[in-house]
Amino acid sequence: MTTDLGAQNLTALLDSARQDYSELAGRGLKLDLTRGKPAADQLDLADELLTLPGSKTHKAADGTDTRNYGGLNGLLELRQIFAGLLQVPVGQLLAAGNSSLELMHDAFVQALLGQVPGAQSRWADQGPIKFLAPVPGYDRHFSICERFGIEMIPVPMTETGPDMDVVTRLVAEDASIKGIWCIPKYSNPTGTVYSDETVRQLAEMSTAAPDFRIFWDNAYSVHHLTDDRVEIADLLGLATAAGNADRVFVFGSTSKITFAGAGVGFFGASEANIKWWLAGLSKRSIGPDKVNQLRHATFLGSAEGVLAHMEKHRALIGPKFEATLRILNEQLGGTGLATWTEPQGGYFITLEVPEGTASDIVARAAEIGVVLTPAGATHPLGQDPTDSIIRVAPTFPTQTDLEAAVLALTTCVKLVGYEQKIKQQ
Amino acid sequence: MTTDLGAQNLTALLDSARQDYSELAGRGLKLDLTRGKPAADQLDLADELLTLPGSKTHKAADGTDTRNYGGLNGLLELRQIFAGLLQVPVGQLLAAGNSSLELMHDAFVQALLGQVPGAQSRWADQGPIKFLAPVPGYDRHFSICERFGIEMIPVPMTETGPDMDVVTRLVAEDASIKGIWCIPKYSNPTGTVYSDETVRQLAEMSTAAPDFRIFWDNAYSVHHLTDDRVEIADLLGLATAAGNADRVFVFGSTSKITFAGAGVGFFGASEANIKWWLAGLSKRSIGPDKVNQLRHATFLGSAEGVLAHMEKHRALIGPKFEATLRILNEQLGGTGLATWTEPQGGYFITLEVPEGTASDIVARAAEIGVVLTPAGATHPLGQDPTDSIIRVAPTFPTQTDLEAAVLALTTCVKLVGYEQKIKQQ
Repeated sequence: MTTDLGAQNLTALLDSARQDYSELAGRGLKLDLTRGKPAADQLDLADELLTLPGSKTHKAADGTDTRNYGGLNGLLELRQIFAGLLQVPVGQLLAAGNSSLELMHDAFVQALLGQVPGAQSRWADQGPIKFLAPVPGYDRHFSICERFGIEMIPVPMTETGPDMDVVTRLVAEDASIKGIWCIPKYSNPTGTVYSDETVRQLAEMSTAAPDFRIFWDNAYSVHHLTDDRVEIADLLGLATAAGNADRVFVFGSTSKITFAGAGVGFFGASEANIKWWLAGLSKRSIGPDKVNQLRHATFLGSAEGVLAHMEKHRALIGPKFEATLRILNEQLGGTGLATWTEPQGGYFITLEVPEGTASDIVARAAEIGVVLTPAGATHPLGQDPTDSIIRVAPTFPTQTDLEAAVLALTTCVKLVGYEQKIKQQ
Repeated sequence: MTTDLGAQNLTALLDSARQDYSELAGRGLKLDLTRGKPAADQLDLADELLTLPGSKTHKAADGTDTRNYGGLNGLLELRQIFAGLLQVPVGQLLAAGNSSLELMHDAFVQALLGQVPGAQSRWADQGPIKFLAPVPGYDRHFSICERFGIEMIPVPMTETGPDMDVVTRLVAEDASIKGIWCIPKYSNPTGTVYSDETVRQLAEMSTAAPDFRIFWDNAYSVHHLTDDRVEIADLLGLATAAGNADRVFVFGSTSKITFAGAGVGFFGASEANIKWWLAGLSKRSIGPDKVNQLRHATFLGSAEGVLAHMEKHRALIGPKFEATLRILNEQLGGTGLATWTEPQGGYFITLEVPEGTASDIVARAAEIGVVLTPAGATHPLGQDPTDSIIRVAPTFPTQTDLEAAVLALTTCVKLVGYEQKIKQQ
């Protein structure tokens, strides 16, 4: 990745970066590339929800009055729309509240305080337990484990998913490893798509823990950025065929389909897991917000309706990803200072910079008004041992702001990168 | 409560009850008095919500785009409407998801798996813990404790709230008692309103546990059935004044104000508790459904708007309570077979029958098609040691069905009651 540059040449490049940086510092920028949030124009695409389900319209297809208590499983017509998209049989898919993050959190709560099928006791009573954390990964996943004192073991991501040699070895030998975090399609933050072989191995591998769980956060199942609507293998189906049906917890939501704060979350699993989940849930809830589920079923209509809607998102955010990649290429291509992912979907680009420079780059960017996700956020406890990963979230800023922010980011990469190179000479 | 009746007279009364029962059995009734659910005409009162917040209307008062992530505390304008009604300063009141039951459940989760302010360790690490359960009480409260293996100690309800002699003695001597369930206004199922003295004692009493919590489920704060809008003392204010601010968890919701499945829940507490709650919540959620909160703020408008809306509910359910009480009085008055509460608000009437007869009465009613809440449901683990309490929920059936169901119920009371009297002679 590095190129051999003469000392004189390097000094000139650093001077140029310093000049650019100083010029940017004078502009009083106020830009934010931190979170994977949809932009307002994306939310506008679902504005019909603001007047749905419509006057005097409150009955579900089966006649249920959605305004009243009941219906723990969620509205059937909405579950039917998402069952295929999330690769879960409709009878094993629940429609829940406004977030899948809370379902993942509550899955830990249920397993800690209840006894998950296959477990010999509650996780809370098993002594220290561990989870595999493919890195780089999603900070909010890691925060849940951190909160509950669950040790995370980082596993390197490859181009086909987590390194399965590492995964299969670890889970086979250590019964205190209770699960693994996975974002199988357009992974956060690398955009990685798990290969069929990776999915098959996850479904079939031997685990020392009888109560092992794959947290399958299919957050970007329909969030394509190219004409190729990437499909992944069906983990729940493969695990069921392999006799490991209870191993899989599937999560999804409409957060980045309709409204990020007012969508619907989904939980899918084996029949035994669903029965267990509902038994716990029935102590907590008298049913989800079925009116919002009716709103969503009416608005989206069908799985095809979801995919058609996602094309509108792509038309808005595709150019943002293209601009980001163009600027990275123009500014950093051939410098030997960085590599980056070129995702086919999802919400993020991962920028990899020389070891030991990511924190400094993020700090320098902040100084000139460009806020990035903290370096390390993609790793358990916020600690990236290589200090080399920066997550770029292109969707939320306007196109103009985004381009200014990415340009500033590349300036910081050059500034810090050339400084390091000179020091190392 | 009993009247001295000759054996001959009793036999005649039993014969008459048997005849009525047999006549009812032939009618093929299918009636349900089980749950405290609003009826469809009550839900219709809030049907504006089906088209709110309205086209292009998604901004909160402070400019927040309610469609996007964020805002863990919930929408300020909605919290402002409910702060006074729930007696919680607006800065200490959170607006959350579609249910207060889930907030109560999650309060246990947070205290079990996190460390509540004042606690020396997590409740999960403290060995067996206990909760006080005023009886008769609400089955879903008790189910939460049961789920988490928390022992419940029944405390008798008096006309002014739980028996405070018992409560103050128990909490002063046993540090494993971590809290008490309270429904302070129009209590479920007795309709009891806690006296100012009871509230003061709860606020000021000494507790052996430093992490004692009062679960103040103010579910019926505005659910008046008379012109007298009953007010209770301000527990959080009194506890704060007594140096016990952290003792109080306040819960409320719009479930029986707007839509029972699609309303908004509230959590209120001291500043330290709220800070602790949000720290845990931030690992679980990126914010509640703010669009639904905007919908509610727009529809309800103000605290006065809430009270005006509740008058419409009263117009619909007041006659149902009146009819129930009228039939109970006509059929059971002077029989010595039952007493009942005459609530000034809320959702329930408690029918007290002779010891050992409640289960049988509920079973007999079921046999002729009238479903009642299981006898015992008002007690921890579903076990009423006196087998004498039946909860009547008049709101959900139509007026005609309700009257038929209550009449059938009184027939069953007579049938079982006279049978018992004859046996006992």
